[in-house]
Amino acid sequence: MNFFNRSNSVGVFDSGIGGLTVVKRINSFLPNEGIVYFGDTARVPYGSKSNSTVIEYALQDANFLISKNVKMIVAACNTASSVALELLRENYKVPVIGMIEPGAKMALENTENGKIGVIGTNSTIRNRAYSQEIKKHDSKITVFEKACPLFVPLAEEGWIDHKATYEVAEEYLAELRIAGIDTLILGCTHYPILSNVIQKVMGNSVKLIDSGTAASLIVEEYLEGRNLRSKSAVPGNNEYYVSDLPVKFTEVAQRFLGKKITNVTKIDVEEIIKKSV
Amino acid sequence: MNFFNRSNSVGVFDSGIGGLTVVKRINSFLPNEGIVYFGDTARVPYGSKSNSTVIEYALQDANFLISKNVKMIVAACNTASSVALELLRENYKVPVIGMIEPGAKMALENTENGKIGVIGTNSTIRNRAYSQEIKKHDSKITVFEKACPLFVPLAEEGWIDHKATYEVAEEYLAELRIAGIDTLILGCTHYPILSNVIQKVMGNSVKLIDSGTAASLIVEEYLEGRNLRSKSAVPGNNEYYVSDLPVKFTEVAQRFLGKKITNVTKIDVEEIIKKSV
Repeated sequence: MNFFNRSNSVGVFDSGIGGLTVVKRINSFLPNEGIVYFGDTARVPYGSKSNSTVIEYALQDANFLISKNVKMIVAACNTASSVALELLRENYKVPVIGMIEPGAKMALENTENGKIGVIGTNSTIRNRAYSQEIKKHDSKITVFEKACPLFVPLAEEGWIDHKATYEVAEEYLAELRIAGIDTLILGCTHYPILSNVIQKVMGNSVKLIDSGTAASLIVEEYLEGRNLRSKSAVPGNNEYYVSDLPVKFTEVAQRFLGKKITNVTKIDVEEIIKKSV
Repeated sequence: MNFFNRSNSVGVFDSGIGGLTVVKRINSFLPNEGIVYFGDTARVPYGSKSNSTVIEYALQDANFLISKNVKMIVAACNTASSVALELLRENYKVPVIGMIEPGAKMALENTENGKIGVIGTNSTIRNRAYSQEIKKHDSKITVFEKACPLFVPLAEEGWIDHKATYEVAEEYLAELRIAGIDTLILGCTHYPILSNVIQKVMGNSVKLIDSGTAASLIVEEYLEGRNLRSKSAVPGNNEYYVSDLPVKFTEVAQRFLGKKITNVTKIDVEEIIKKSV
């Protein structure tokens, strides 16, 4: 008998809208699971903020999901995963998974030449989150890391096939091409939106690892292992919460999820702060 | 006799580092004035957030400056100026100036053909802050507005002469060129960093209005008018406060100010929230 109810939803949080690419994957792999999503749109982005600030925010975000009785927490934000995962696991009884372990694991399964590239926000790259995780499993792998801070605003602008996006990608990815990597971790949940551009610039021989896909497989593994898989025969319900007004979120969400959403609720971030004190 | 001491500093706040382009102008026009700068780097950017969130943050930022005994407040953030100025003026006894009125005034003084362009963040453009201010003074002026959300991350990346920046500028500015404007308000404090690219794309016949320059002239006017000009014979001292760790701020500040800074202090944003409640 498990402490948590298998009919409860999976909680997913992110600094803003990027985590929706993870929701899309979970919906597709585990269609009968319900999802409670929290996007901290009032304080986005986390990627440029200090570790201590990100840790504080991540705990507040997770607190909100716990208040919604989720059976599991997915930190669908690479920045939060890279600095706050251990603390989240210490603080909550529900399983907590981040983006780093699943993405690193999938990259290790895919590389043939032992050269893995990682792209992400300034914070994820500065913390060397992926390379540390990869080295833990296989110290012979060479990891090449590159921060690509302009990819997030380009994805949010929807410039998924714009000349400027190619120019930016050419600049950022040049050194990874020279390094001869055969596997590239998209270490930021926004980046799958730009995967066509990234694939074209890197060439078809490079395998792109979508951390949302990788995380969805681990979500399934965790739920199965803990007997927490929903037994529902109907598709799960998604609920969305944001800390700023939902207008922009709802608009961009359509591009990120590939479908329209209506049930977005604004919550008060100061309330979350109070609850977490 | 004035309530405020003329030897006190001028307070300047911004959502992050953009306001430093305004500090640079004030230092250059009014070298013997001291400045207390607060950059809300933990919650940057404001431009993508809702009006109610920005108003709340702006009041907290101003509260912090007041706690430092400033003799005047400059909201060196176009987004905050466009939504929170009236409320700031109601709340504080010190003079408060924003970016919108000075920029609009200077554009009106410069235009010959009556066609003024405005570029800014999503929020500034959505609020139509500049066009409303311009129309108040001269209803015959035609104002063309365009949000340029990628300019801020490009400025922060330091891509001030990069091919990608030209591609982005060509895309954003195309309709303003077609409209035949002769004056363009840089309605975001980050944009002066990209003024070379913007000028090249718009052509030399278009006059660029730097809202920081415009605001500095108004700061001088206000201080003179209220007998608050510093009588000090030595250069004023700048103090910098930020809400997130100062590393990135200090690095980018050098590019924005054109000089090195060392005296940056991190303050606790939750403390500001408490003080403002």
